[in-house]
Amino acid sequence: MNFKAVIYILGWILNIEGAFMFAPVLISLIYGETQGAAFAVVALICIATGSVIVSAKPENMTFFTKEGLAVTALAWIILSLFGCLPFIINRDIPSFTDALFETVSGFTTTGTSILNDVEALSHASLFWRSFTHWIGGMGVLVFLLALIPMTGGSHMNIMRAESPGPVVGKFLPKVRQTAFALYAIYIALTVAEILALIICRMPVFDAVNTALATAGTGGFGIKSTSLADYSPCIQWIVAVFMALFGINFNVYFLLFMRRFKSAALHEEARYYLLIILAAAAVITLSLYVSGTLPEKSFGGNIRHVFFQVISVITTTGFTTLDYEVWPQIALTILIGLMFIGACAGSTGGGIKVSRILILFRTVCREIMLFFNPKRVVKIKIEDKPVTNELVHSVSVFLAAYVLLFAVSVLLVSIDNHDFTTTFTAVAATVNNIGPGLGKAGPTESFSFFSGFSKYVMMFDMLAGRLELYPTLMLLAPDFWKGLLKR
Amino acid sequence: MNFKAVIYILGWILNIEGAFMFAPVLISLIYGETQGAAFAVVALICIATGSVIVSAKPENMTFFTKEGLAVTALAWIILSLFGCLPFIINRDIPSFTDALFETVSGFTTTGTSILNDVEALSHASLFWRSFTHWIGGMGVLVFLLALIPMTGGSHMNIMRAESPGPVVGKFLPKVRQTAFALYAIYIALTVAEILALIICRMPVFDAVNTALATAGTGGFGIKSTSLADYSPCIQWIVAVFMALFGINFNVYFLLFMRRFKSAALHEEARYYLLIILAAAAVITLSLYVSGTLPEKSFGGNIRHVFFQVISVITTTGFTTLDYEVWPQIALTILIGLMFIGACAGSTGGGIKVSRILILFRTVCREIMLFFNPKRVVKIKIEDKPVTNELVHSVSVFLAAYVLLFAVSVLLVSIDNHDFTTTFTAVAATVNNIGPGLGKAGPTESFSFFSGFSKYVMMFDMLAGRLELYPTLMLLAPDFWKGLLKR
Repeated sequence: MNFKAVIYILGWILNIEGAFMFAPVLISLIYGETQGAAFAVVALICIATGSVIVSAKPENMTFFTKEGLAVTALAWIILSLFGCLPFIINRDIPSFTDALFETVSGFTTTGTSILNDVEALSHASLFWRSFTHWIGGMGVLVFLLALIPMTGGSHMNIMRAESPGPVVGKFLPKVRQTAFALYAIYIALTVAEILALIICRMPVFDAVNTALATAGTGGFGIKSTSLADYSPCIQWIVAVFMALFGINFNVYFLLFMRRFKSAALHEEARYYLLIILAAAAVITLSLYVSGTLPEKSFGGNIRHVFFQVISVITTTGFTTLDYEVWPQIALTILIGLMFIGACAGSTGGGIKVSRILILFRTVCREIMLFFNPKRVVKIKIEDKPVTNELVHSVSVFLAAYVLLFAVSVLLVSIDNHDFTTTFTAVAATVNNIGPGLGKAGPTESFSFFSGFSKYVMMFDMLAGRLELYPTLMLLAPDFWKGLLKR
Repeated sequence: MNFKAVIYILGWILNIEGAFMFAPVLISLIYGETQGAAFAVVALICIATGSVIVSAKPENMTFFTKEGLAVTALAWIILSLFGCLPFIINRDIPSFTDALFETVSGFTTTGTSILNDVEALSHASLFWRSFTHWIGGMGVLVFLLALIPMTGGSHMNIMRAESPGPVVGKFLPKVRQTAFALYAIYIALTVAEILALIICRMPVFDAVNTALATAGTGGFGIKSTSLADYSPCIQWIVAVFMALFGINFNVYFLLFMRRFKSAALHEEARYYLLIILAAAAVITLSLYVSGTLPEKSFGGNIRHVFFQVISVITTTGFTTLDYEVWPQIALTILIGLMFIGACAGSTGGGIKVSRILILFRTVCREIMLFFNPKRVVKIKIEDKPVTNELVHSVSVFLAAYVLLFAVSVLLVSIDNHDFTTTFTAVAATVNNIGPGLGKAGPTESFSFFSGFSKYVMMFDMLAGRLELYPTLMLLAPDFWKGLLKR
């Protein structure tokens, strides 16, 4: 493996992280807090270390698949390790494990918190938490790709490793242009949300934080009650933007190119919206039948149901109420949505709507072939035939996912919490959602889990965000052999 | 589709079921009970109907894959529909839904019961329950295959549809011979267990019933306390025979052929035993650490742990104690074992050890290929290379399994029981185990579920026993189109 090139990129990652860290320093200056100093110190450490590393550019900057996977996994670990240092130094989160958990949860856009009182944090730390969501949402390597020139297919091999979904749509001929366009859409949508929230009279600091956390489909709130105490107008805005950030970004690109018909016919986005509508309808019905409607007004009930459904399927994890009192069918639907997840090519996590579609169609094809084994049944998605290789890789993805999930539940159950808590805590982390059910429910923090369970869940969050392979690769003997051989 | 041939086979199924039903009639005569009359009546109805159907043999007796699947699904439904009638007629289980549930649970070797007081049943009904396990364990079509001559690959297409596992091992050149050999092994092992239990001073009626239920890895007990009130000697015997019936029957055939080395090297069987040992070791440790050891003696604890582990992995479902008081890690292991299941080619259910092995190796290969995409990595099982088609079909099986499981949990959760109950009830039925956890735990019956949930679980039991496709095929529009076109 080309470790020199990998380390070079990691140097750039540190530089970028250092630069990003000046944002919380600025927030600290605005609010006259001392906690920002920690960010300044760590920013300088990052940039110093990064600069030394990038001072010598390796001659061979070719990235094959394995280098793409390795640099992705290592970049995210480095980001988290350095990103958690300010929390420890400024005593906002004194424990290393907890600070790392919070940071991994931030970058992976999970939004699961170990904080029992989030409102006690300094503004700088609150902002950094939200900002990690924003950075992690689009991916920091994608950001880097827009900046660094590289050989041949190298860009693509990195982008493929970091981007969510079974196929990586390169909607512009060059990866660098695509990365630019993605970030442009991302920034535009984020700014639009900030403005909309401010118009709805949300305080500016709250609006910025909420928008950053929505954009990454993260879910860290700056209030203990998440979004519950804000006005219905603000809740609607957040719900709509969560839904928007869960859509495949190709759709926005198509809209930008004025290809409105193609955008409107985007298959994954349509199924995604259909699932949201269907889930909301059944949950509303179940609340009505069981007499557990949260509000008296029709609009209020619809708002709460849509908010929770969108928050879970996009794997954001914001809440406007404690949905644990809902009937079991509603909870099961929410658990199901956790696994389905958002669209590929969005900032959301989970298995992804397109993968579910491919899997479902593969099973249907298998059954159709029993009736006539000679019939040619092509699986299509977005009106393009799905290759056998893709069907294979999606099926294997599911197998890897199920195995990882099962092993994680097993390991976390050593903590001896009930099955619902254990199962949904793992589901919430591996799918990058945030809250689960039971003791890991929306009104609780994850602080009560053991250190061991927290590390298992950190691994799960990274595996979930990076779509398994980059992180699973770190467990492969071949990787360590290659590293030791140097 | 060749419906004439399918119906002809269904006629034979009815004849065989009618013949089998004289066994409970005999039991009734021995115990001087009147309830046996219902079995005599239904037996005659079965044989009368069956005889009319088989009186005209269709000219074309070719069975392709679709006919194999269709006849399998329909045969099991017919078996259950007629098999539940005696329970209703003799008032042992007056409700149609409950009687059908109990019979489906019997034939599919699930062993989940809706009876709150099993000991109130007549001897004839108790025996019929156990006997359905025995019939369903090896498969009634396999039995039929040994009797009826058919064209070309027809035998194989039926056997493949009914037999558990990713590959159907035909260890003798002809399917008929193989079916004979399978039944010979099955009967020999059952008789051995009956004798062993009688030697351990179990009453003869109890011994016969227990052995029949063990052989099919079913799990219907004739006591409310399952196996808890019997002596340690009896519990050990049952544990050992459960383990034996969970092993791939190819192993016994190899032993019979004096190919001892091949038998000892059987990969699936070795992993199966390894999983049992590992699970038992971790559970024992967890009981020791948490101070919840059920007995004071070392032997007693080992017995309980091994009994429960073997009972769950073989999907039998007998119990010697209420394991719900065990720590969560032990319960999670048991839930994991539910899904793993026994060996292919045994009478056990679940996903099967060989499928798990293939899936695990496929994932490992996927990761290895990242390091060197040109490397040829062959997946092997039993020292034979696994074809890409098989890898594909196992992956698709997993996808179908996960989809069925998710939809079932969703439908059963309408009943509004807690997540643990709903999840494990579906796991226990789709994997043909019997008891789950929570309200569906080992000390409870499934009578409290709604009629709708019971039908969902009946479908799951059939889908689990027949390995999805025969039952999923009944949901395919193509099947109904073919049926209506006639």
